Amino acid sequence: MAVYTHLSAEDLADLIAHYDVGELVSAKGIAEGVSNSNWLLETTGSDGNGARYILTMYEFRIELEDLPFFLGLLDLLAEKGCPVPATIHDRNGATHRMITNVAGEPKAVALIEFLPGVSIDRPEPAQAQAVGKALAELHIAAQDYATRPNAMGPAAWRELIRDCGTEGLARIDPALPAIVEEALATFESAWPEGLPSGVCHADLFPDNVLMLGDKVSGLIDFYFACTDFFAYDMAVTHAAWCFADHGRSFRPEIATALMQGYESVRPLSAEERAALPMLAQGAAMRFVSTRTFDWLNTPVDALVTRKDPMDFVRRMQFYAASGDAPFAA
Amino acid sequence: MAVYTHLSAEDLADLIAHYDVGELVSAKGIAEGVSNSNWLLETTGSDGNGARYILTMYEFRIELEDLPFFLGLLDLLAEKGCPVPATIHDRNGATHRMITNVAGEPKAVALIEFLPGVSIDRPEPAQAQAVGKALAELHIAAQDYATRPNAMGPAAWRELIRDCGTEGLARIDPALPAIVEEALATFESAWPEGLPSGVCHADLFPDNVLMLGDKVSGLIDFYFACTDFFAYDMAVTHAAWCFADHGRSFRPEIATALMQGYESVRPLSAEERAALPMLAQGAAMRFVSTRTFDWLNTPVDALVTRKDPMDFVRRMQFYAASGDAPFAA
Repeated sequence: MAVYTHLSAEDLADLIAHYDVGELVSAKGIAEGVSNSNWLLETTGSDGNGARYILTMYEFRIELEDLPFFLGLLDLLAEKGCPVPATIHDRNGATHRMITNVAGEPKAVALIEFLPGVSIDRPEPAQAQAVGKALAELHIAAQDYATRPNAMGPAAWRELIRDCGTEGLARIDPALPAIVEEALATFESAWPEGLPSGVCHADLFPDNVLMLGDKVSGLIDFYFACTDFFAYDMAVTHAAWCFADHGRSFRPEIATALMQGYESVRPLSAEERAALPMLAQGAAMRFVSTRTFDWLNTPVDALVTRKDPMDFVRRMQFYAASGDAPFAA
Repeated sequence: MAVYTHLSAEDLADLIAHYDVGELVSAKGIAEGVSNSNWLLETTGSDGNGARYILTMYEFRIELEDLPFFLGLLDLLAEKGCPVPATIHDRNGATHRMITNVAGEPKAVALIEFLPGVSIDRPEPAQAQAVGKALAELHIAAQDYATRPNAMGPAAWRELIRDCGTEGLARIDPALPAIVEEALATFESAWPEGLPSGVCHADLFPDNVLMLGDKVSGLIDFYFACTDFFAYDMAVTHAAWCFADHGRSFRPEIATALMQGYESVRPLSAEERAALPMLAQGAAMRFVSTRTFDWLNTPVDALVTRKDPMDFVRRMQFYAASGDAPFAA
C-alpha cells in the first residue's frame, strides 16, 4: 500500500488538462493498492462546482491489454446502476493514457470517479447482506459483457506453489507442503464444471467494498475481474468476509446474511449450492498460493505489508471439514 | 511517507464521535509525513453540509508535551488569518486525544482542518514571492506566542554528525567528514547572536506549502516549529526553495522573489541581512546532518524514502562561496 511514483503538481495539472474536469485543486497520494499507485484528486469540476477523482497509475502485474476490459466494465456497471466508480474518459474518449514517470518509464494511468464510503473491518449482518446483494447485482448487470479468462485459477495456484518450493513452504509452516499438495490434487480431480458463469469480481474483500452504514456505496478494485463461475465469486466473497481472528473463527451470522443477500437477487441452483464447499476451499487456496508466494518473495522491509498465508490455510481447512453447513442461507 | 498504523472504519467512527464533525463518510490513508500517519477524512460536517479533515497520528520523534505548542500555534495563526489548518477541538476542548493502536500502544492523534492546494516542485517567481510574504506574516502573527527551543540547532547538528561516525560519513562521500567538520567549527565560532527572534516554521519546504496558482492556500507540518532567529527561518526557506537539480543549480530569480515577498511585509535589518550567508550555511547543515543520520540509519527497503544528504552539502558549499549575492532582494 504505497505511492510508488512521484508525480509533481505540474505533472498532474498537465495530465488533467486532457480531461474535462476543470483545474487541479488538491492532490494526495493515498495508501491503497499493491500493484498500482493512487492519488485522490480534487478539481474545480467540469461545471465549476468541484469534483473528486481517483487517479490510478498501473505499476506492476497489470497487462496493458487488459485495461480496456477493466475500465469498460466499470463504465458498463456504473451505467446499469451498480455502485462502482465510472471511468472518466479523456477529451478524445480514451479510458486511459500513457505518461512517463521520473525514471523515464511509460506508465498507464486512468482517472475514475471518487466514491464515498469506508471499508469495514468487522461487518454486521446487515452489511454482509448488502454485500451479497451487490455481488449478485454485479453478476447480472455484467452478464453480456466481454470475457477474460481467470489467470488466478487452479492451474495458477499449482504454478505459484511450485515456484515457492517445498522448503519455502515448510519455512512458513512444517505442515504446509502436505496441506497444499493434498488440496491441489483434490481440485485437479474434483473441480466443478459447467456451472453458470460470467464476469466475476474475484477479489471482493472488505477492503474493496465502500459502505455508508448498511449501504454499499462502492465496489472497487476490479483488477482481478474475469470470467468464472458466479458461485466461485460467491465463495471468494464468503472466504473473505465470514471469518474473524485471522481465519480462526467462523462467523455463521455473517455467512447467512451474505448468502441471503445474494439469493435475494440471484438464487443459486442446486448444482451451484452443491459445489460451494469445494469452490470455497479453492477460493481459500487462491489466497494461500498468492500470499505464500508474496511471503517468500517480499522483503520484510518492503513498502507492501506481507499477509500471512496461514490465515487462508485455516479457512481452507475449515471448509474441508464443514461440508455445506457454512452456506446455509 | 506512509501510514504506519491500521485504523479501521470502526476505530475512526469511535474517534470522531468525540468531535462535533458529524458522521464519517470517507477515510483514506495518505502518503504524507515521515514521523506520523495521516488520513484524509470526510464527514457529514457539524452542519450536515460535509467537511474534510486531516487526522494525524503521532508515531515517532514528537514528544507529547510539545503537542500543545504545535496545535495551539495552528489555532493562533488561523485566528490571525494565516493560511494554516486550524486544530479541531474535541467536545471537551482538547486539541488531541490518545487512542490505542493494534499493537496496544497509546498514540496521540489530532484532527485538523483540510486545506486545498498542491505542493509545487518547481516554483515560479510569483509563487516564491507569495511564500516569502506568507513566512513574514507568520513571523509577525506568532510573535507573542509561547517559546520552544530549537532542538535542531547547531548543537544537535554536531551530535547527529558525531553519531554517524567518520566512516559512516566517508561511505556517503570521501570528502564529507572534512566538509562537515569545517562547517561545524565555523558555526561554533561565528554563529550570529542577538538577532530578532520568535516562532519559526523551521522546515518550510515546498512539500509543506499548498498553493492554488500563485496563492499560498496552506502552510502545513509545523512539527519543527520553534523559537529561533526570523532570519534563520528565512535562510531555511531560501535553501529549500531556491535550487534545482538536487542543489546543483541556484535559481536567482526565485531567491529574489522570495526575499522581496518577505521584505514586503517584514523588512530585514542590516544585522539580519549581514547574517544571512552564515545562517544559510547553517540551514543547509541542518538538513545535511539529519539526512546523513537518516541515510545511515534507514534500511534501503524501508517505508520512508531516504534523501541524499549531498543535495544540501552542495547548497552549503554554494552559500559558503557566494557571500551575500544570493540574498539580494
